[in-house]
Amino acid sequence: MAHYTDNLTQLGQQLGAPTDPDSAVLERVPNPHADIDYVARFTAPEFTSLCPVTGQPDFAHLVIDYVPGEWLVESKSLKLFLTAFRNHGAFHEDCTIYIAKRLRDLLAPRWLRIGGFWYPRGGIPIDVFWQTTEPPKGVLIPDFGVATYRGRG
Amino acid sequence: MAHYTDNLTQLGQQLGAPTDPDSAVLERVPNPHADIDYVARFTAPEFTSLCPVTGQPDFAHLVIDYVPGEWLVESKSLKLFLTAFRNHGAFHEDCTIYIAKRLRDLLAPRWLRIGGFWYPRGGIPIDVFWQTTEPPKGVLIPDFGVATYRGRG
Amino acid sequence: MAHYTDNLTQLGQQLGAPTDPDSAVLERVPNPHADIDYVARFTAPEFTSLCPVTGQPDFAHLVIDYVPGEWLVESKSLKLFLTAFRNHGAFHEDCTIYIAKRLRDLLAPRWLRIGGFWYPRGGIPIDVFWQTTEPPKGVLIPDFGVATYRGRG
Amino acid sequence: MAHYTDNLTQLGQQLGAPTDPDSAVLERVPNPHADIDYVARFTAPEFTSLCPVTGQPDFAHLVIDYVPGEWLVESKSLKLFLTAFRNHGAFHEDCTIYIAKRLRDLLAPRWLRIGGFWYPRGGIPIDVFWQTTEPPKGVLIPDFGVATYRGRG
Amino acid sequence: MAHYTDNLTQLGQQLGAPTDPDSAVLERVPNPHADIDYVARFTAPEFTSLCPVTGQPDFAHLVIDYVPGEWLVESKSLKLFLTAFRNHGAFHEDCTIYIAKRLRDLLAPRWLRIGGFWYPRGGIPIDVFWQTTEPPKGVLIPDFGVATYRGRG
Amino acid sequence: MAHYTDNLTQLGQQLGAPTDPDSAVLERVPNPHADIDYVARFTAPEFTSLCPVTGQPDFAHLVIDYVPGEWLVESKSLKLFLTAFRNHGAFHEDCTIYIAKRLRDLLAPRWLRIGGFWYPRGGIPIDVFWQTTEPPKGVLIPDFGVATYRGRG
Amino acid sequence: MAHYTDNLTQLGQQLGAPTDPDSAVLERVPNPHADIDYVARFTAPEFTSLCPVTGQPDFAHLVIDYVPGEWLVESKSLKLFLTAFRNHGAFHEDCTIYIAKRLRDLLAPRWLRIGGFWYPRGGIPIDVFWQTTEPPKGVLIPDFGVATYRGRG
Amino acid sequence: MAHYTDNLTQLGQQLGAPTDPDSAVLERVPNPHADIDYVARFTAPEFTSLCPVTGQPDFAHLVIDYVPGEWLVESKSLKLFLTAFRNHGAFHEDCTIYIAKRLRDLLAPRWLRIGGFWYPRGGIPIDVFWQTTEPPKGVLIPDFGVATYRGRG
Amino acid sequence: MAHYTDNLTQLGQQLGAPTDPDSAVLERVPNPHADIDYVARFTAPEFTSLCPVTGQPDFAHLVIDYVPGEWLVESKSLKLFLTAFRNHGAFHEDCTIYIAKRLRDLLAPRWLRIGGFWYPRGGIPIDVFWQTTEPPKGVLIPDFGVATYRGRG
Amino acid sequence: MAHYTDNLTQLGQQLGAPTDPDSAVLERVPNPHADIDYVARFTAPEFTSLCPVTGQPDFAHLVIDYVPGEWLVESKSLKLFLTAFRNHGAFHEDCTIYIAKRLRDLLAPRWLRIGGFWYPRGGIPIDVFWQTTEPPKGVLIPDFGVATYRGRG
Ligand SMILES: [Ca+2]
Ligand SMILES: [Ca+2]
Ligand SMILES: [Ca+2]
Ligand SMILES: [Ca+2]
Ligand SMILES: [Ca+2]
Ligand SMILES: [Ca+2]
Ligand SMILES: [Ca+2]
Ligand SMILES: [Ca+2]
Ligand SMILES: [Ca+2]
Ligand SMILES: [Ca+2]
Ligand SMILES: [Ca+2]
Ligand SMILES: [Ca+2]
Ligand SMILES: [Ca+2]
Ligand SMILES: [Ca+2]
Ligand SMILES: [Ca+2]
Ligand SMILES: [Ca+2]
Repeated sequence: MAHYTDNLTQLGQQLGAPTDPDSAVLERVPNPHADIDYVARFTAPEFTSLCPVTGQPDFAHLVIDYVPGEWLVESKSLKLFLTAFRNHGAFHEDCTIYIAKRLRDLLAPRWLRIGGFWYPRGGIPIDVFWQTTEPPKGVLIPDFGVATYRGRG
Repeated sequence: MAHYTDNLTQLGQQLGAPTDPDSAVLERVPNPHADIDYVARFTAPEFTSLCPVTGQPDFAHLVIDYVPGEWLVESKSLKLFLTAFRNHGAFHEDCTIYIAKRLRDLLAPRWLRIGGFWYPRGGIPIDVFWQTTEPPKGVLIPDFGVATYRGRG
Repeated sequence: MAHYTDNLTQLGQQLGAPTDPDSAVLERVPNPHADIDYVARFTAPEFTSLCPVTGQPDFAHLVIDYVPGEWLVESKSLKLFLTAFRNHGAFHEDCTIYIAKRLRDLLAPRWLRIGGFWYPRGGIPIDVFWQTTEPPKGVLIPDFGVATYRGRG
Repeated sequence: MAHYTDNLTQLGQQLGAPTDPDSAVLERVPNPHADIDYVARFTAPEFTSLCPVTGQPDFAHLVIDYVPGEWLVESKSLKLFLTAFRNHGAFHEDCTIYIAKRLRDLLAPRWLRIGGFWYPRGGIPIDVFWQTTEPPKGVLIPDFGVATYRGRG
Repeated sequence: MAHYTDNLTQLGQQLGAPTDPDSAVLERVPNPHADIDYVARFTAPEFTSLCPVTGQPDFAHLVIDYVPGEWLVESKSLKLFLTAFRNHGAFHEDCTIYIAKRLRDLLAPRWLRIGGFWYPRGGIPIDVFWQTTEPPKGVLIPDFGVATYRGRG
Repeated sequence: MAHYTDNLTQLGQQLGAPTDPDSAVLERVPNPHADIDYVARFTAPEFTSLCPVTGQPDFAHLVIDYVPGEWLVESKSLKLFLTAFRNHGAFHEDCTIYIAKRLRDLLAPRWLRIGGFWYPRGGIPIDVFWQTTEPPKGVLIPDFGVATYRGRG
Repeated sequence: MAHYTDNLTQLGQQLGAPTDPDSAVLERVPNPHADIDYVARFTAPEFTSLCPVTGQPDFAHLVIDYVPGEWLVESKSLKLFLTAFRNHGAFHEDCTIYIAKRLRDLLAPRWLRIGGFWYPRGGIPIDVFWQTTEPPKGVLIPDFGVATYRGRG
Repeated sequence: MAHYTDNLTQLGQQLGAPTDPDSAVLERVPNPHADIDYVARFTAPEFTSLCPVTGQPDFAHLVIDYVPGEWLVESKSLKLFLTAFRNHGAFHEDCTIYIAKRLRDLLAPRWLRIGGFWYPRGGIPIDVFWQTTEPPKGVLIPDFGVATYRGRG
Repeated sequence: MAHYTDNLTQLGQQLGAPTDPDSAVLERVPNPHADIDYVARFTAPEFTSLCPVTGQPDFAHLVIDYVPGEWLVESKSLKLFLTAFRNHGAFHEDCTIYIAKRLRDLLAPRWLRIGGFWYPRGGIPIDVFWQTTEPPKGVLIPDFGVATYRGRG
Repeated sequence: MAHYTDNLTQLGQQLGAPTDPDSAVLERVPNPHADIDYVARFTAPEFTSLCPVTGQPDFAHLVIDYVPGEWLVESKSLKLFLTAFRNHGAFHEDCTIYIAKRLRDLLAPRWLRIGGFWYPRGGIPIDVFWQTTEPPKGVLIPDFGVATYRGRG
């Protein structure tokens, strides 16, 4: 197996969370299997941000899939990046897409998509889905598998 | 089997819904099995009322269990009674308890309980549970079986 | 193991269904384990009868538990008995209790209970629960395990 | 991230519900990510209208997906629009399609679909599904994920 | 919204069930949205017929999807049609397909399919699936969503 | 409806199980709907065979789908055929494929597939999937719908 | 029904979240049904705090049940109180119990309990459960109904 | 930790299955924790026997719980014992109770119970439950957790 | 809120796993809420040990509940303790009980229980349950909530 | 049926686990059905390795699907191969892909894919998916069917 840990600067260290998304540093590591098209999925059920109008907290369950090219996202920096939305105001559609674009710009992936499943406000939750392109031919991509909101009963 | 349909005035007829809970007429029919203690459960996932402060619609999933004494509630009148909250303002706790008390006063049941599972507002739904007394000894009463609210993911 | 098949008259034969519940013959066989208190459960998701007012079909999922004394119900006769409600009119509460009483009278069980879970009419299904007495001390009786009705979503 | 709240007139304010769908005002805001094709989904488990023949309440669980072009629907106006069916009579098929057409006309989306999952009446619920066109190539659209109606048991 | 109730002869009335499928009258109403291709789904978990060999009852859960052309099926007549199998003998495959063909002949739909999920006999249930043609291009059709039979455990 | 029961020799009779798969007789009946392409599915959660190496019992949940041509499999003969593996040694892959080939040879179906979901041995269950060809165009074929093995928790 | 809204000071207003739990003001309103023992449940799947050692965010799903005496908690003040933990460090056990004690001190309820279901850290999540006393006799209290953590698969 | 493997004669060896239950040898090993009352549960979803009337295979999912006294059942001998029913005829009630009594006689447990969940025959499955006595005070015994049979849909 | 982190020696540090359970050091911290009886639950789906006879890996899902007295278990030391079984041979019953006894000896809890849900070997998984005593009166203890093993289908 | 057990060297024997993946010997047996394209799936919920940075255990649920050419993987050697990661350090992406490549190199399958579903670390689990090529035309390949990680609630 390949060993690709040389340039990791955050894994195994205690780091303070960045205070807003723009200042958060996303890191990348070389993809040891760049010879093939495979998918890496991150599932983040612990996402929270603020409503830019009311200042009240919002919550979301995020699923991020990508086909790496030369780079993998370093997972601890991804966690810190997502944590940086904690006290930052952003609309649901915008926030979801912004996260995806940051990863796209960092990784130049062969393909990337995001699903943002937001907790209900006013009884009607919003979900947001985007992929950068159609998936590369012959790549295996399972469904998100997140349950549709159903209220009670 | 017993035949206890003689005094039904609403079953099999087309009736307008009463416009508020106080004016709704709940009807009762003789209990053909008053010699034993058994439970009848009604499940009403189609309940809706209005918030008395904001006027916005509220929704709830109701489960009503009772041990009949001399009387059974006539099920069509129960439906019309519940429909009468549609354009009526009431708080969650009060509304749930009021429904149970109306049935208690009508039926003089040996025991009655209600579970009101309200749809979330502001992310934190309220559930309301009440029973008139401890259940009579030897009576079989299953759980409500309604899923706890969980948000998304 | 005991052998208790001698007086079975219906098992392994092709029999016409009785045309109403009162004329259906429920059969019993000796309980080979009358020295202990155990529970036999029958689950009947294929129950159907007619509404005595409208003549429309009704459907129910039935669960019957009992602690046999000297007798077990013969399962094919139980099936034919339940089939006899197919073209017979009966209210939900009455129908459920009647089935339990017929079994109680046939078997003189140490304990018996029934759960009748009826399909919704008008959006509000009724469930009916009864047990003959409190269960005998030391007897193991699992929950019905039938999901509460929840509408859609 | 973009900021697109300038022309919101209803968010953060207390507004009376419109009394019928035709008079309800749906609002739109600029799409901050019009450079890409993504999907926004609204899930509305709290929809209710009236049966145009009997006047009795109907209930549905709605799921609306769309790929925005220049516009996003403003979510509070969407909620008020859906609330406007509360005392309005409409058939299931018609009501579901009408909602979708109003959104199509407002937003000129690149694609839009609706799923209406209606609570059972007479034991046989109806579901209604429509999309304006085949989805744009390369757009990610998860299933509705709403459970099929199953009665009891 | 369109209004298409003029020629309904059964909705809102009390009608006897037809006694066999051939004599049952299926009714249709004009499709108010014939300008678009959408899907209407009926879910019927209350279907029952008789085994033509043994005369014993059979049960099925049916799901019917169609893209209406000029006509919608009137839902009360559909219910009465399905009820007409109650005392009628038919094999599983034949019965399922017959229902679909009757609807096809009545409605001349742009597309129609059926799923018949039969209760087990002898431990091995049969399911039957048919669609009239490939779906029209660009039409949205969710899965049946019915669980595979699994026995116990 | 068609009537196609003339050549059934096993239905409604008590028959001994064949003692190995090769000697089991699979029967067929004419397909009453050979004018259309539809799918019949058999689900068999009660399959068991023996391990050819250790002689220990193996268990599987089988799902068989096919598009009949001129013939339907007679369901009682199918049951007896599957029962014939009870005391017969066979590897998982081979056993699953053998069943499918026997049905293919008997029925000359337009298409046939099988899913064999085997109970775990050593913590790692094997599943086997095969279809004779790509499905005929325009035929409706739902997923197997069998849960993936997950161990505990 | 009773009307008990007179002393609400926060409902229907836009309020800033308090910045720490100690300074958050929990409000109460008179219990309109103090003549009976019933249960009110709040479910809060959107709870988040900080780890007092690492400063990283923690997440929990909270369920709070109580039998009101003279007072009900005002639900908006409860929401703001829970939001006040967002940037506050607290251990899981301590944080859960502190919330319960604040409510106990405010409401002097006849009984109160809390369940705190924390998201996993290091693969092993912690749950915390407390009730002030045994429940009053004859009070109906359903299970929490929160799924046990299971990892993957 | 204790080491109690000295008298195991079957573990780690390849053994032929006994051909009937009466000749199967159940083995026991010393209980290393006889100082406390704890529960061991065996779940056997791979049980099969024959119908003593028709000779057709029957299937069951068994759950066995016990509080060991001086002895534990050796698990490989338990597996071989259960396998011995494979070609043996026995009624459902009798077979389930017989298994429990054999274990009771071997182990002299402080308490033992069994749940037998049989696959449906004729649409109505039977479940059988027994425990030797009320459980010892202070012993922890979870529910069986086996889903109730529900047919289809 | 109390602050009880002073004597933590492992939290926030990188530590090697102990190589066997006996040498693993379990740590404790003062219980900040020793004035009340509450429950802390740890769920560990990542437990693995070795079979003492064959040396093959075993896996279990563990749930540990306790009512702390003067002490809480420090969660990182608990994780390292559980990790110490990774290359250690132990029988299922013994291993589960040993873990519980170590915690009992360390914490002198008012009450403690464990549920060990082991992955199947030979098709029949074993579960082990123990509690130190009956729970203290008035303490709230939810079910384990772990699904019963069911094989496939 | 074919018999293909001649060259099995590990099945039915007690073997020590290899101590690292590179030295593990994967064995193959002839494919008895090489005339057709079918899929064999292995599900391994008992996978564990070590983190190469921290040395802490990692866990994963693996699903491996392939279309055999001339060879099948021998299942016992597959189990021993997977066990060899137990005390070996590897990153999630690398480990998952390495397993797939080893099988690809051994079997020269017509197609192979892997899904690696890793237990969460830091709240955000990673899943890894790869297939060697697009599936051969006409091959039946069900979804992985593994639930998305959801945290708690
Ligand atoms: Ca590599
Ligand atoms: Ca809400
Ligand atoms: Ca009567
Ligand atoms: Ca959640
Ligand atoms: Ca006996
Ligand atoms: Ca933007
Ligand atoms: Ca209904
Ligand atoms: Ca059956
Ligand atoms: Ca025909
Ligand atoms: Ca196994
Ligand atoms: Ca009041
Ligand atoms: Ca697991
Ligand atoms: Ca010991
Ligand atoms: Ca059903
Ligand atoms: Ca404190
Ligand atoms: Ca072969």
